[in-house]
Amino acid sequence: MNYPNGSKQIPRSSQKLNSNETIFSNRGMTLEEDINATNDYYLDACLAVIHKKPTPVQIVKVDYPKRSAAVIKEGYFKQASTTDYNGVYRGKYVDFEAKETKNKTSFPLSNIHQHQVNHMKAVINQGGICFLIIRFAAFDETYLFQAHHLFEHWDNQFKGARKSIKYEQIRENGYFIPFAYQARVNYLSIVDQVYF
Amino acid sequence: MNYPNGSKQIPRSSQKLNSNETIFSNRGMTLEEDINATNDYYLDACLAVIHKKPTPVQIVKVDYPKRSAAVIKEGYFKQASTTDYNGVYRGKYVDFEAKETKNKTSFPLSNIHQHQVNHMKAVINQGGICFLIIRFAAFDETYLFQAHHLFEHWDNQFKGARKSIKYEQIRENGYFIPFAYQARVNYLSIVDQVYF
Repeated sequence: MNYPNGSKQIPRSSQKLNSNETIFSNRGMTLEEDINATNDYYLDACLAVIHKKPTPVQIVKVDYPKRSAAVIKEGYFKQASTTDYNGVYRGKYVDFEAKETKNKTSFPLSNIHQHQVNHMKAVINQGGICFLIIRFAAFDETYLFQAHHLFEHWDNQFKGARKSIKYEQIRENGYFIPFAYQARVNYLSIVDQVYF
Repeated sequence: MNYPNGSKQIPRSSQKLNSNETIFSNRGMTLEEDINATNDYYLDACLAVIHKKPTPVQIVKVDYPKRSAAVIKEGYFKQASTTDYNGVYRGKYVDFEAKETKNKTSFPLSNIHQHQVNHMKAVINQGGICFLIIRFAAFDETYLFQAHHLFEHWDNQFKGARKSIKYEQIRENGYFIPFAYQARVNYLSIVDQVYF
């Protein structure tokens, strides 16, 4: 397993805590909320400019009432053709998808779609930084998992391999993302270590 | 005025055409349609991965009919907090806003919002590539105008300067974007020249 340089933070499932020790737990916050808060902090601190893309909506019918805002009266959710998050960090393009699973033994590949994998491959091909952020909710552990590892598992599932990535493989090939008070999913600390 | 290296293409308003000469005109296509088609071509040709962000919508009410897709019954358009287009080209983060004007003498700064300028400044601060694509519809001319020039005009308008950028200044400080058959707004040819 890979740790950020000099970090002593370890996965919560491996921690032994005294009964009076404070736990900065993510419980109660979704991964998306944590990442959005992290990105807000990064932006305010001039560390990075990374945003979640809006949910794509097919708008069918709009009312334009006099003297008030246009109202969408009929719309449908469209499947996103890319990942959810992208932006710029130290001049580089950063792109990732974030997924939370309740599964305790593996990350099901059904969380990801083919067109997202296609997008991630195109990003890597252009020299962008691309990864998954995977949270195992049961352990409150969050990992950065590089796109090229995902591609292996993704492509192999069509050659008879399993349709999920084992928890142990994510621990082994991924990077545990430390919790920081202001950056709840402090993924830039891993990006610094892995990509720069 | 700046031209791409070796390009002989010149603004249409300066062109003298024989009566039987074919004009590859953009007329009839909006700037957004042209840029989307260009980005599709760039993606297919593995030249760049650049997408338009979905329009942000505040969803208020959703119906979930049995055996069919969820229907948004009430929603509102939200103001975008960033620019419309971003992505990766040769490892670098690329970010831009595209605006078309019918004005023949200047580009009104009212086309841009303060939060977009803030976003563009944050992008430049992180080393990203950031610009406007401005089309003068009357002349069918499209220009790449770098963000730092925009900032000058933007900031000066609050010190009593004009609230628009003169057409001549955009010709002078911007770059005429050539039309290509498959890349209708071939902005990467300018990005190559200016940023690499």
